[in-house]
Amino acid sequence: VEKYGMDGLSSQVDTSSGAITRVPGFKASGVACGLKASGDLDLALIVSDGPASAAGVFTQNAFKAAPVLFDAELLAHNAGNIRAVVANAGNANACTGRQGMRDARTMASLAAAEANLPQDSVLVMSTGIIGHPMPMEYVRAGIQAAAGSLSPQGGGDCARAILTTDLVAKEAFIQITMPDGGIVFIGGMTKGSGMIHPNLGRLTSQLDSGSALHATMLAVITTDAPVASEVLQQALETAVTTSFNRITVDGDTSTNDTVLVLASGTANTTVIDIDSPGYAPFLEGLATVCRSLAIQIARDGEGATKLVEITIKGAATVDQASVAAKTIATSPLVKTALFGHDPNWGRILAALGRSGIQIDVARVALWMGEFQLVAGGEPLVFDRQTASSYLSGQEVTVTVDLGLSAGEATVWTCDFSYRYVEINAEYHT
Amino acid sequence: VEKYGMDGLSSQVDTSSGAITRVPGFKASGVACGLKASGDLDLALIVSDGPASAAGVFTQNAFKAAPVLFDAELLAHNAGNIRAVVANAGNANACTGRQGMRDARTMASLAAAEANLPQDSVLVMSTGIIGHPMPMEYVRAGIQAAAGSLSPQGGGDCARAILTTDLVAKEAFIQITMPDGGIVFIGGMTKGSGMIHPNLGRLTSQLDSGSALHATMLAVITTDAPVASEVLQQALETAVTTSFNRITVDGDTSTNDTVLVLASGTANTTVIDIDSPGYAPFLEGLATVCRSLAIQIARDGEGATKLVEITIKGAATVDQASVAAKTIATSPLVKTALFGHDPNWGRILAALGRSGIQIDVARVALWMGEFQLVAGGEPLVFDRQTASSYLSGQEVTVTVDLGLSAGEATVWTCDFSYRYVEINAEYHT
Repeated sequence: VEKYGMDGLSSQVDTSSGAITRVPGFKASGVACGLKASGDLDLALIVSDGPASAAGVFTQNAFKAAPVLFDAELLAHNAGNIRAVVANAGNANACTGRQGMRDARTMASLAAAEANLPQDSVLVMSTGIIGHPMPMEYVRAGIQAAAGSLSPQGGGDCARAILTTDLVAKEAFIQITMPDGGIVFIGGMTKGSGMIHPNLGRLTSQLDSGSALHATMLAVITTDAPVASEVLQQALETAVTTSFNRITVDGDTSTNDTVLVLASGTANTTVIDIDSPGYAPFLEGLATVCRSLAIQIARDGEGATKLVEITIKGAATVDQASVAAKTIATSPLVKTALFGHDPNWGRILAALGRSGIQIDVARVALWMGEFQLVAGGEPLVFDRQTASSYLSGQEVTVTVDLGLSAGEATVWTCDFSYRYVEINAEYHT
Repeated sequence: VEKYGMDGLSSQVDTSSGAITRVPGFKASGVACGLKASGDLDLALIVSDGPASAAGVFTQNAFKAAPVLFDAELLAHNAGNIRAVVANAGNANACTGRQGMRDARTMASLAAAEANLPQDSVLVMSTGIIGHPMPMEYVRAGIQAAAGSLSPQGGGDCARAILTTDLVAKEAFIQITMPDGGIVFIGGMTKGSGMIHPNLGRLTSQLDSGSALHATMLAVITTDAPVASEVLQQALETAVTTSFNRITVDGDTSTNDTVLVLASGTANTTVIDIDSPGYAPFLEGLATVCRSLAIQIARDGEGATKLVEITIKGAATVDQASVAAKTIATSPLVKTALFGHDPNWGRILAALGRSGIQIDVARVALWMGEFQLVAGGEPLVFDRQTASSYLSGQEVTVTVDLGLSAGEATVWTCDFSYRYVEINAEYHT
């Protein structure tokens, strides 16, 4: 059990390997089929022993990857009977036109055939290079191998198989005691390091776009909760608002962002409905897993030397707090100052001031960690050396109190280093 | 006469040294008074021989520097009788509270006294470090020296005295033949390299904020056009929409951004009113000078290795085109790809797709220079080596045609290099 963040939830969440298959009723695998030049694992399969309720949220980018459009369509007509997710890294199946849509369908179809599942029960995710046709001969072999190695211990390999520029796998597992005494498990895995600024929501539109572009944050969450797909969808949409939709690495929202949840319903507890007593604890558990995974992405952002937690308090509304926190979190001047261990409150206030939210300058207070640097909109005397030393740590908090009302939001990001430039100037399409 | 941009106006604009004093009726000077540790010029004075009409646009950041608030107040009651602008670099007089407001007033008052001008006729601009009280003993000596060295040849020194992290001075001069045969001159100087994402507009609010934060883009424009301050204000507000408000270096809008125009009215031409024949050519000349200066800022952006011109055509509206171009221009992934000479159309389309504007993916076309990389929303086969070679130049254009309507906008920016990180991680408050 590792510490994963700064929100006091580490005691509840287990981030060790194998999360998604620690949930009863799921098997998974991760194999290498040649999509990654490195030879690393690159094809992942997650299978539910029986029909699962499913929910998904997807990027709101106007350009959407073929797998995003495929999944949205499948969930629109069969969200109550999902059996599996097949995912690959190394090729995003993006900007591949109609062939890309055919390839996404073929991936789902092959996975269903190899794992003996009904057609129309397999969701698809892809991440990797763009604008190249999916090498389906590799994928075909990979799906065969993955189906043959499905295991109740396969979660760890599965989580590794979806990584791209990530340095570490990202997993989270939680156990919830329900009001009726039943136990529900939730496990999740995610990937993402660059082009991270998720803006996830329900995707109701049909195939309005045949191409896509890049590969970014993907997540799969498994649970044994008994919950219908509509209820699961609502819970997921709520959970992402304070987790995946509250992280940013570079401000660039991808075209492939996808979070999928599969609920097997095998837990020995009352069915969870929107107005049942079990909804709140289930939602809290789901949001906790999502938040752990999201924070792990921010911590592993491209080139990051530190995790930065930015909290805006006292805003007019929660939305205004979120807008302000994201504006600060995406400011290149703030992020480079944090890389340089510079307690540059001026850049933070400048970003705050351009965010467009309601501000009364004379009420603004600012802290880095425990160090208050600004009160009443003006700088305080502080020990620069001590503050800089604090900023040299691997976890940093920035807190701004606007002193207006009760709106509060926290966003997680990372600093901006030479390594970020190196990764993104030397990564070629 | 240097080439300053890619919009075909280079033949009209002279960017050589001394622009603001090539306009008849203005003297200027730039001296060193110790505000810059380097000993470089750091105090600038521009004086009109007689009362000038004046106009100003200022940052819309919620946090506004003391000089910004001072100038807005002065222009509100005396815009028809301005005589001078005093400016300093090295200290932004920012986050200095009520003392900062007093110091801004004192700077104006000292300049008036030393140059034998009426009180309430001098505007103020400051740029440099923040959160430190203005060292008024240096400023006082500087203003004395500057007043003593005012000269009709002082424009060049004046332009150098406002620079901070800029590598070069930025000036522009133009001559306009009016419909009645009269000649009008317009000269301008500007500074800015980082915290550049101007959002300039009229500032009508009174003193609602007593502190400020950083130092960024400043510009002073002189002209001998006969034009009332209200008309000049309207022309300036129009001119900035396609110039200073269309550049970005890092997306961070400063708290000090200011553009001031002084019109002496001595030119031998009919008074320019909104509905007079001379308004259009005057506005075009003013906008041309502003655009030249703005492009010079983008070219000299912190760490820049190239000037990037991003044009969105075929958008539903001009505003949507501008939003899309700015989203692309501030994308770290796009900017690092350009630094790496990578023709990464995918990152450009991804940024376009998250901009929130109306898009029909199937109609999108994209060019870098003369190389078309995308048609109908899908990639074309192109010679990557040749395209990369093009991107290694010092001027690069990106053009996107959305194919929807006639909305078009151009934004100028620069790439994002290791040097940007170095400058901003090692610059300390």
